[in-house]
Amino acid sequence: MKPLFYSDYLEGAHPYLLQVIQEANFEQNPGYGEDDYCKDAARRIREAFSVPDADVHFLEGGTQTNATVISSVLKPYQGVLCPDTAHIAVHETGAIEHIGHKTLTLKNNDGKISAAQIIDAVVGHYADANHEHVVQPGMVYISFPTELGTIYSRKELTEISAACRECKIPLFIDGARLGYGLMCSECDIEPSDLGKFADIFYVGGTKQGALFGEALVICNDAYKKDFRYNIKQNGGMMAKGWLLGLQFAALFTDNLYFSLSEHALAQAQKIRAAIKEKGLKLFGGSPTNQVFVELSLEQQERLAQFVGYEYWQKIDDGHGAVRLCTSWATTDEAIEILNNAIKTL
Amino acid sequence: MKPLFYSDYLEGAHPYLLQVIQEANFEQNPGYGEDDYCKDAARRIREAFSVPDADVHFLEGGTQTNATVISSVLKPYQGVLCPDTAHIAVHETGAIEHIGHKTLTLKNNDGKISAAQIIDAVVGHYADANHEHVVQPGMVYISFPTELGTIYSRKELTEISAACRECKIPLFIDGARLGYGLMCSECDIEPSDLGKFADIFYVGGTKQGALFGEALVICNDAYKKDFRYNIKQNGGMMAKGWLLGLQFAALFTDNLYFSLSEHALAQAQKIRAAIKEKGLKLFGGSPTNQVFVELSLEQQERLAQFVGYEYWQKIDDGHGAVRLCTSWATTDEAIEILNNAIKTL
Amino acid sequence: MKPLFYSDYLEGAHPYLLQVIQEANFEQNPGYGEDDYCKDAARRIREAFSVPDADVHFLEGGTQTNATVISSVLKPYQGVLCPDTAHIAVHETGAIEHIGHKTLTLKNNDGKISAAQIIDAVVGHYADANHEHVVQPGMVYISFPTELGTIYSRKELTEISAACRECKIPLFIDGARLGYGLMCSECDIEPSDLGKFADIFYVGGTKQGALFGEALVICNDAYKKDFRYNIKQNGGMMAKGWLLGLQFAALFTDNLYFSLSEHALAQAQKIRAAIKEKGLKLFGGSPTNQVFVELSLEQQERLAQFVGYEYWQKIDDGHGAVRLCTSWATTDEAIEILNNAIKTL
Amino acid sequence: MKPLFYSDYLEGAHPYLLQVIQEANFEQNPGYGEDDYCKDAARRIREAFSVPDADVHFLEGGTQTNATVISSVLKPYQGVLCPDTAHIAVHETGAIEHIGHKTLTLKNNDGKISAAQIIDAVVGHYADANHEHVVQPGMVYISFPTELGTIYSRKELTEISAACRECKIPLFIDGARLGYGLMCSECDIEPSDLGKFADIFYVGGTKQGALFGEALVICNDAYKKDFRYNIKQNGGMMAKGWLLGLQFAALFTDNLYFSLSEHALAQAQKIRAAIKEKGLKLFGGSPTNQVFVELSLEQQERLAQFVGYEYWQKIDDGHGAVRLCTSWATTDEAIEILNNAIKTL
Repeated sequence: MKPLFYSDYLEGAHPYLLQVIQEANFEQNPGYGEDDYCKDAARRIREAFSVPDADVHFLEGGTQTNATVISSVLKPYQGVLCPDTAHIAVHETGAIEHIGHKTLTLKNNDGKISAAQIIDAVVGHYADANHEHVVQPGMVYISFPTELGTIYSRKELTEISAACRECKIPLFIDGARLGYGLMCSECDIEPSDLGKFADIFYVGGTKQGALFGEALVICNDAYKKDFRYNIKQNGGMMAKGWLLGLQFAALFTDNLYFSLSEHALAQAQKIRAAIKEKGLKLFGGSPTNQVFVELSLEQQERLAQFVGYEYWQKIDDGHGAVRLCTSWATTDEAIEILNNAIKTL
Repeated sequence: MKPLFYSDYLEGAHPYLLQVIQEANFEQNPGYGEDDYCKDAARRIREAFSVPDADVHFLEGGTQTNATVISSVLKPYQGVLCPDTAHIAVHETGAIEHIGHKTLTLKNNDGKISAAQIIDAVVGHYADANHEHVVQPGMVYISFPTELGTIYSRKELTEISAACRECKIPLFIDGARLGYGLMCSECDIEPSDLGKFADIFYVGGTKQGALFGEALVICNDAYKKDFRYNIKQNGGMMAKGWLLGLQFAALFTDNLYFSLSEHALAQAQKIRAAIKEKGLKLFGGSPTNQVFVELSLEQQERLAQFVGYEYWQKIDDGHGAVRLCTSWATTDEAIEILNNAIKTL
Repeated sequence: MKPLFYSDYLEGAHPYLLQVIQEANFEQNPGYGEDDYCKDAARRIREAFSVPDADVHFLEGGTQTNATVISSVLKPYQGVLCPDTAHIAVHETGAIEHIGHKTLTLKNNDGKISAAQIIDAVVGHYADANHEHVVQPGMVYISFPTELGTIYSRKELTEISAACRECKIPLFIDGARLGYGLMCSECDIEPSDLGKFADIFYVGGTKQGALFGEALVICNDAYKKDFRYNIKQNGGMMAKGWLLGLQFAALFTDNLYFSLSEHALAQAQKIRAAIKEKGLKLFGGSPTNQVFVELSLEQQERLAQFVGYEYWQKIDDGHGAVRLCTSWATTDEAIEILNNAIKTL
Repeated sequence: MKPLFYSDYLEGAHPYLLQVIQEANFEQNPGYGEDDYCKDAARRIREAFSVPDADVHFLEGGTQTNATVISSVLKPYQGVLCPDTAHIAVHETGAIEHIGHKTLTLKNNDGKISAAQIIDAVVGHYADANHEHVVQPGMVYISFPTELGTIYSRKELTEISAACRECKIPLFIDGARLGYGLMCSECDIEPSDLGKFADIFYVGGTKQGALFGEALVICNDAYKKDFRYNIKQNGGMMAKGWLLGLQFAALFTDNLYFSLSEHALAQAQKIRAAIKEKGLKLFGGSPTNQVFVELSLEQQERLAQFVGYEYWQKIDDGHGAVRLCTSWATTDEAIEILNNAIKTL
């Protein structure tokens, strides 16, 4: 079998998580996330991110988490500001519109948007004499890391957060790959910073060592009330919610979540080194577990003989960018096969 | 620990399912249900239910499956006819309304509705001079077994199905507990009948031996096209969809799904025998894995000392109905404790 | 031509309204309700109903007004408590569900619901251990007069209003026929009471002398902000909003609105007198401009030879209720024809 | 009073329309568009546009017409392709998203999009390996004339229409200012062409001589069924629908609709001549009733002393574009004041 670098959710779960599920399998746990594992996991997450007063909920996947949060926060006539590359804007089959809201896209810069763009959008909205005829910006959605693997700096996040407060709209951070951002060497923010910047964020499990699951952290009191109704209404309340609690409790035991993140990042760095050594050009500035590289059509074909990768986008008639993802599960053997293949391009 | 009979989704999964997950854990599978396990599971389900041309999709839970199907089938101005006890009408926090549709409830008779009620509703709709001002009945939703554990007879289902065809609206059967219905001794329909009656139905996993998951079976060609868009839009497309395929493939290996159902039913019959022997009165006519019994307040308190049960509803000032659920996982020890407790009431 | 008593919106507008439109026709007015006529009309309505701080908006019709208000007030997981005869529940083609909300119907008593029913519904909701799985009651909708022409007494409205405040949910009163209620001899509340009871209400124009239009009055500050966005989003912001302002300013000049209401009520009383004299039985207790009477099939046929009426509902195999509506435009000639016809039944 | 050129819906209705309303005022007409005036108007519109088999419906305004059509045509996971300047994309407060659909914007070229853009969008959608994760293009919306007053040529519309058929998605043309497009000297299509190009279009009344109202023409049988349910559900079914029928019947008597259009166009041409004579620069290529001109800040201020205009957009720090609209009601006196003012700039 060729090793696959298509995405970071190809394998199941870290063995420790399977083990705890196995051990708990015949326990009888209350349903819908009202079990002790969820309580324990919530406690650990509050501690890991230094958000002692946050509400923590567990949902199965990112699309439903995004829709649930956005449906919960916005008024009917409001939309969500986000990069034009945002997952909610391009890869969730209009889940946000399905439940009534517009994604208000801002031009991304290597996956990111800036505080200035947010302020311009909000100030511009109210400056428009016809603003009542236009969807009102009601919140900001960014992901950390972004869809392009890039990360916001402390300075950028501080400014974005300040912009949101100035505009009186909340900041929601999609952390589907949160650990891969926070543990990356270029990252100058700490887990404990997140709750200072964001009103709501989530800690991705699906791509970070769990079978599935996202841990949603609501920091701002204004958004806590009755949130579980929203989860149920949006189809995100797992009958066996304890499966989520159990996995997140395990991931936040002995720093496992962050260790697994570091592993993926180290593997990505090995790929970047091979790319650099070969004289190939990285595409974009991702320092995280997603490695983007520019390849000619011939190089793409050749690489495909050795490993699976995701074709990302056309650059010019002869060249395109491809994506190589590492994860908590990426083995040294897979990296070796990939890096040997890179040498031959 | 007291054994709990609150519900049929208290435990994890049948050990064989955990084993296959464990074994496949480090494979690299494509995402979103496009893997070989899903294909295999679909094939097995088509075979088990004799629906060679059906499309089979796997979703995580019932609420999202119901919303996805109903959103997919109905036109905006249509609603879904269902019993007033239907899960979609009372226990999904308005998920159906959230995506734009009304639940058109019909008075249930021990959890069931009849063909005549369906025809009356549809004929009555068009007979109303102002029918364009009223939500148009666009489909029928029933569950098998019902929320009250009862089952439709072959005659009833034949009539309901004929009524739907006469009214030119599809029949959707929620089979969250399908096996517990089909395997029950009073049931006079076969798995192979379901696809003849229903345009769409699903085979519940969450309550029937899986960690989670429902296998949706679309029999009528009219509803197949582009269905996966709906799944994604409604937040039901699991990144690691192979977890669903793997579990359903396992459940439909060596008849496991139906054997587990039979186990739960046998355990429920033991409870009913104890209830009868004690001279207590069953509430409603459930022949499946949900046992409802009428108890005085004192009897309820006493029973609670030995086992967990779900309080169902008030009967009169001194009496109420309680629910005792068995499942694939209900042990003989638990039954013994319960039945001994019943003797003391 | 037979005189028609089908409904109270058969004619156009009171001639004075046509005259003011004619006079203003070639003025150049700003669009979207931001003109001086709307300001003037709002001022007059605030005065007529003694709600000096209310926001007043003008919309074209009832269905869009109801949907706009309800969409604006409710959180996504909330529904609107209302009588099972409520217009929003039965005659708006699911407009409320279309934009995401469930109508939570309570059994009506001659078109009305009681404070006790509201409290039971709200208390019952939170008492349910699974309330997060159930749509949360988020507001109350009643109409005054009701769909059956009945009116709430001061005592009933005081209690309903208190119940809503106790339950912390707003009260919204649909006043499509408000004048016909307030001016009726049995009515013991004043226009100035309405704003004390309701958080939001509207003053119907379409059935009360205008070509079209409903004047929405938001009394509770909590629901005022950004309301015009909701109007636009729900398609209710007329380009030439001044047509609405102009008509309502005219209706609230020299008490015209209430005089027209009195005319309709007087005509209805004449019909009731004829019905009584003939020894026929009124259906329900409407004291307003809708007269319901029980007639045999033969009587229905005979009456249809002389006037148009609306068949309302079956009473038994041989009898049904029919509706006869008067309006601001009902002439003495029409009443005479009708009453002569009644004599012959 | 300064003459105002803000928009084309500042005045009421052409006097003949007021007259027919006046005359019909005390007739008793059935509600909801089921009267003879609506039938007559529909017949006249079918004739004027040579669409003998089309269904014609009358709604009050553009936003509700757009939402009703789009809600009716699209499946839940589909969006509507449109120019990024489209009214539905920017000026309807997200009405389309409110009822569940995404506007899929294409970069406009002076207000227009091309057949190639449509094909690229649709082909590109299906070429994306992850297209099920992306909103599917389900229809095309354009306006004629566009928001910038420009018009599509026969060649362009022929190509767009062919592209839609090739892509199997319907074409919907917003004709809020239809007459101002069709009667313009640069226009090389006939009223009878519209139904050949579009599956659905509408004939604007609000900006073209009526008090309000849009006549929706459904040419393609596939979209006819049950359409009135959609109108009611979206709050667009006027109680006194005969007001719409009556006005459209009048507009399509003796060619009034098109004569009024010609008047507005002639007045616009006079403004363009004055602009040209003054040596000012038109902004964009509108040949219709909307005249856009580039003015310095000083010129804008000066012009504002004489007439009302709409500031359109910034061009550079010292310059902006302003909009001057004519309509069926624009008087020669107003034009004279404006053109004299232009001379002084």
